[in-house]
Amino acid sequence: MADYPPAFQELVSALRQLPSVGARSAERLALFLVDEPPEVAGRIVQALAAAKQRIIPCPDCGFYSEGEEELCPICRDPGRDRGLWCLVEQPNEIVKFEKAAGYRGLYHVLGGKLSPLDGIGPEELQVTPLLKRIGLEKPREIILALGTDVEGETTALYLAPLLKERGVQVSRLATGLPAGGGLEFADSVTLGYALAGRREI
Amino acid sequence: MADYPPAFQELVSALRQLPSVGARSAERLALFLVDEPPEVAGRIVQALAAAKQRIIPCPDCGFYSEGEEELCPICRDPGRDRGLWCLVEQPNEIVKFEKAAGYRGLYHVLGGKLSPLDGIGPEELQVTPLLKRIGLEKPREIILALGTDVEGETTALYLAPLLKERGVQVSRLATGLPAGGGLEFADSVTLGYALAGRREI
Repeated sequence: MADYPPAFQELVSALRQLPSVGARSAERLALFLVDEPPEVAGRIVQALAAAKQRIIPCPDCGFYSEGEEELCPICRDPGRDRGLWCLVEQPNEIVKFEKAAGYRGLYHVLGGKLSPLDGIGPEELQVTPLLKRIGLEKPREIILALGTDVEGETTALYLAPLLKERGVQVSRLATGLPAGGGLEFADSVTLGYALAGRREI
Repeated sequence: MADYPPAFQELVSALRQLPSVGARSAERLALFLVDEPPEVAGRIVQALAAAKQRIIPCPDCGFYSEGEEELCPICRDPGRDRGLWCLVEQPNEIVKFEKAAGYRGLYHVLGGKLSPLDGIGPEELQVTPLLKRIGLEKPREIILALGTDVEGETTALYLAPLLKERGVQVSRLATGLPAGGGLEFADSVTLGYALAGRREI
């Protein structure tokens, strides 16, 4: 039985490493890439190599930064409120906050959530760099922008006293109904929070 | 508003060229590739570059072949019946026939189907190379393994007389019920073919 040539099979196998790309998707992607003009694959090869080489975590906040420049664009921005930080789990969440607009403080990437069952304790997260940065820059307030799942709550409960004893005001994101969503999609816990946090209009 | 660094945005944009990869999928793939160890991206870069460099169409049949070797493994196989060819639209269909097993002839890739509405006439397909190869190798029989859609039928009707006048016996794949499929999924046209082509058991 003849099969695809070895170079093709290795490409399929390499593409299967990607998230939610199975055997059939990988074969479809490989067929596309092999049949298209070389510019298509060449652009991906170059962009990927450049991104891996140049993108590094910002040494201050952990957001994506480009190699030549030390700090990320947010940490370098002189118009930012340097006393207000937003603590997020992953760097891509910073882009969501930036798109939401209205926030002009800095960020800090924790790198995950406490999850003892998965063996993720304070040592696995970037807690020590966070405390060190707090000691150096002395922010006024830190917003814990962690998920409202069990791990997010655990992480918030663990971090809050550590931050408070360093003289930082600690806040959390509001819990309530998602914007534009009907009541029928809200679970009772969310509704409870939405009721407790109701605001006069 | 801060956004991803330019190298990241270029990677997202390069990945969006892939089939069924939209803005969100491309961002998710790029995040994965940037965050994973360099081996993951490196393997994809190398496999893609190697595949683009080494995989060429077999000069005889059009199946995928590796650069160093002139003919594909099927055309080089001395155990094949060289008088029986199977005409397919695309090279990846050859792998499906090979996996189905039982076929020991050669193949020929047409490169598409006649579709006057899309401007695909006989010149756009590999009809001239096919006729030239027939003249050189004089096959006994050619199986038209084209789809049963309008374009596939049109292409078969166009090719059959051309092949017959060169002394080649022309056949088509059987039309009938798919293996393992219940009657409830078969349309009436397929059922009509299945009835007409019934076989004694």
